[in-house]
Amino acid sequence: MQWDAWGDPDRAVTLSDSQLALVHDVLKVSASDVQAVSRSEVRVRPSALTTYDVAALTAIVGEEHVSTNDDDRLPRAGGKSTLDLLRRRAADEQAAPDAVVVPGTEDEIVELLAVCAERRIAVVPFGGGTSVVGGLDPERNGMRAVISLDLRRFDRLESLDETDQEAVLGAGLTGPKAEWLLSEHGYELGHYPQSFCYATIGGFAATRSSGQDSAGYGRFDDMVRGLRVVTPVGVLDLDRPAPKTAAGPDLRQLFLGSEGVFGIITAVRVRIHPLPETRVYEAWRFPDFATGVAALRAVEQLGTGPTVLRLSDEVETAMNLATVTDAGGDAAATGGCFAVAGFEGPATLVEARRAATRTVLESHGGVSQGEEAGNHWAERRFDGPYLRDPLLSEGALVETLETATSWSNLAHLKQAVTDTIQAKFAEYGSMSLVLCHVSHVYDTGASLYFTVVGAQRGDAMAQWRDIKSAVNDVLMSHGGTITHHHAVGADHRDWMTAEVGPVGVRVLRAVKAALDPAGVLNPGKLIPVPVPEPHGP
Amino acid sequence: MQWDAWGDPDRAVTLSDSQLALVHDVLKVSASDVQAVSRSEVRVRPSALTTYDVAALTAIVGEEHVSTNDDDRLPRAGGKSTLDLLRRRAADEQAAPDAVVVPGTEDEIVELLAVCAERRIAVVPFGGGTSVVGGLDPERNGMRAVISLDLRRFDRLESLDETDQEAVLGAGLTGPKAEWLLSEHGYELGHYPQSFCYATIGGFAATRSSGQDSAGYGRFDDMVRGLRVVTPVGVLDLDRPAPKTAAGPDLRQLFLGSEGVFGIITAVRVRIHPLPETRVYEAWRFPDFATGVAALRAVEQLGTGPTVLRLSDEVETAMNLATVTDAGGDAAATGGCFAVAGFEGPATLVEARRAATRTVLESHGGVSQGEEAGNHWAERRFDGPYLRDPLLSEGALVETLETATSWSNLAHLKQAVTDTIQAKFAEYGSMSLVLCHVSHVYDTGASLYFTVVGAQRGDAMAQWRDIKSAVNDVLMSHGGTITHHHAVGADHRDWMTAEVGPVGVRVLRAVKAALDPAGVLNPGKLIPVPVPEPHGP
Repeated sequence: MQWDAWGDPDRAVTLSDSQLALVHDVLKVSASDVQAVSRSEVRVRPSALTTYDVAALTAIVGEEHVSTNDDDRLPRAGGKSTLDLLRRRAADEQAAPDAVVVPGTEDEIVELLAVCAERRIAVVPFGGGTSVVGGLDPERNGMRAVISLDLRRFDRLESLDETDQEAVLGAGLTGPKAEWLLSEHGYELGHYPQSFCYATIGGFAATRSSGQDSAGYGRFDDMVRGLRVVTPVGVLDLDRPAPKTAAGPDLRQLFLGSEGVFGIITAVRVRIHPLPETRVYEAWRFPDFATGVAALRAVEQLGTGPTVLRLSDEVETAMNLATVTDAGGDAAATGGCFAVAGFEGPATLVEARRAATRTVLESHGGVSQGEEAGNHWAERRFDGPYLRDPLLSEGALVETLETATSWSNLAHLKQAVTDTIQAKFAEYGSMSLVLCHVSHVYDTGASLYFTVVGAQRGDAMAQWRDIKSAVNDVLMSHGGTITHHHAVGADHRDWMTAEVGPVGVRVLRAVKAALDPAGVLNPGKLIPVPVPEPHGP
Repeated sequence: MQWDAWGDPDRAVTLSDSQLALVHDVLKVSASDVQAVSRSEVRVRPSALTTYDVAALTAIVGEEHVSTNDDDRLPRAGGKSTLDLLRRRAADEQAAPDAVVVPGTEDEIVELLAVCAERRIAVVPFGGGTSVVGGLDPERNGMRAVISLDLRRFDRLESLDETDQEAVLGAGLTGPKAEWLLSEHGYELGHYPQSFCYATIGGFAATRSSGQDSAGYGRFDDMVRGLRVVTPVGVLDLDRPAPKTAAGPDLRQLFLGSEGVFGIITAVRVRIHPLPETRVYEAWRFPDFATGVAALRAVEQLGTGPTVLRLSDEVETAMNLATVTDAGGDAAATGGCFAVAGFEGPATLVEARRAATRTVLESHGGVSQGEEAGNHWAERRFDGPYLRDPLLSEGALVETLETATSWSNLAHLKQAVTDTIQAKFAEYGSMSLVLCHVSHVYDTGASLYFTVVGAQRGDAMAQWRDIKSAVNDVLMSHGGTITHHHAVGADHRDWMTAEVGPVGVRVLRAVKAALDPAGVLNPGKLIPVPVPEPHGP
């Protein structure tokens, strides 16, 4: 990926005339309002590692797997949030890990963690670099230095069992590489988050990623059957063959979502399924968001079995007309709310599920827009993030944020978040657009995914932190979760006490202290500081 | 429940002539070989509580909610494992909690835990008393005394939301009471373990219970959306409305299966579903177990959607002919392996799911035995445990044990367990019968549930511990889990290091120390002692 933008430079997009008009005429900003920094102008924070440090690291992994070069360190200096991208555009020195270390075996990771604890060097695990919550911030956090521990060499399909429909995947495998390896055997994982092209298996596990096919195949944490995790006190092997167990707490669920603070995930056993015989995506239109939500809820609670089920609100549906990704296609032009219901699997089951789903959607006011618009969505499902970069360059402030809540609270929470964003942008003298969709549905509730567009004003990083902080407070006070699938990282850390309570934070800190007594693992992420004091003796 | 036997005395069974013949002629034991102790002969361990202790407890919950009477303490002296029942038949003094305390509010539990920590009194949470793994052993474990903390007053349906299809249930609600309260609103939970009639919502959560409808409605841990837990350091409220979150580790999964060692679960938010319009149970026959297993696997991996799916092996199918529960009915008479596929839900979906399942079962060698035999199974689904008591009284050693593994390892593990049980009984000069069924199926594997019948020899408790220990070793060495749904308790505790590894045990101990620094909560259960030392710094 590019160091200062999303994805593949060859797929970068330029803004259409209507998009430019929106930015110039409505937001009243333009490229001349913002700074641009080219790679040649960038100063990278010098490495704090001593030659002795570097020697200790190279003794473990070999000289070719340790780099202190700026060109290796800079791309691992963070993730791909808008804050990350704005930071890249700053003229001042760029923070970066003090070295990039690329181990090839679990034993090497065990040794690296021991050396780092001894030398007080923090360790940030690195997969695809797609964090949008500051999960990769190269924080030294009181340590002498910080390294990026790149897992790219853990890139094997370690095993695949057709009887059990399970596979063990190396943590460093990217989404496409993992699916390619599985497809050679006739199988797939079916995990398609928007970060799919770059993010890795280990990252999916460490952040509880959720893909666009979650209605059918579940979230990534639902797919996991076993984990291997290297901690500073030893290797944790949670990989017994049992599909389920009552042998105490499910410790896998403590390491799923642990974001590198408890250990380094090296391999993940996942359930897989045969490559679908049939894939059908159908677009639907609902008169309004509330009607569409009721329809999605009915489908999910009845259990008719779609693989993909999503719904854009009125603003997102309308805006798709003007965007380069044009996800709604012609369907969007008809107004109302655009939805997609997708079905994958054996032809006979797909037909039955589709028919049962169609009955529910139609009885709830849905009107089919046909497969062409559905396929159009599917073809462009990973394109969204490319639009942010040119918008940022034109002076717009663009970011996404997401949450989840119960069905009964969905409209209330959506309104509160929208109102908060618009009020905060108004404080900065900017109008703002708030687009929203539901893309993950459960029997008891659903996710809400917001795309926000306003004008950059002054220090845009400080501006966004201010706006986001207000939104986070609203998520906590209005029955949301601080994150449905983006994870916690540094950006959501200070809301974790509200999320899990002081006793919950106490549990996280106890596990952290037991597994990482030197505190080298991804410091400053996930676990709030200082320790809240729960009541009691 | 009776103090020394399963369930309702009015539903106690007597052995048929064929069952008596089996015991007398094959096992070569009879009632004269075993001891019987009537309630009037029993001596109960005197309460170790001082009048000051009792005064401190009554000050919190009121005099009417603290009892040191033998008749209250004895029924809470343990669960309903064969070891528990044999212990009741021993002539020596019966261990028992030193008092039964019945709090009515969370605040009272908070105060009780503080007083118990201060006075060094252990606390065993008590729900339905159906543990079969020593989870209720009244262990003082170095404390001055031990109390049974009975949750029966937490017996309310706290809330029910029809839009979200969620309800909050008090931890002390029994299965039938919970279902009755939900059914008044037109809903059900659908959790039917064999302990259903007595076990409680809190117990289901604390032990990761799994019910007979797990194929359709999931395990209990799948049903849980939120939990309230009173710990000695404060109340943990994991009950945000979000159906799913990426806000770090899923801490609910740390308290599900925590068996009272981390805190007292007081309320559980569960997903519910409308009372099914249709319920159909159909019996099937397969020529042999391997064929039946392949059919169940195909159904589950294809996802045709049965609510109940289970398969008895050849021995269990044949033995059902001779048992009073006669679960197989006429179907069993035809030999091979008896199976049940049940479907619940809206009529249209049930028909489609049943048709799709039928196609798979038939293509895998299954022959329908009709609905009558299926309904016969459903009617008697909770009767199994009643047969054990008269068998124990005739000198038979009867117990169940269970595990789970991957599909590919199922036959291998089943054979190893069966061989081990038979070899161990042979060491005691007894033949033995080992019955087995699959009653919980997953995409990647299934459970194995064994019923064991042999002859008691000498100290039957020591004999069973010896046999069970050998089986547990085999579960660990042959790819099983130490328990699929019975939980860990005292009986499986020493295999937890093999189950989750030394790093996993270190995590459990760290959480325990953080939440229960005085160590009063259910000591001696779940977490192995002494602490294994993981490698590393």
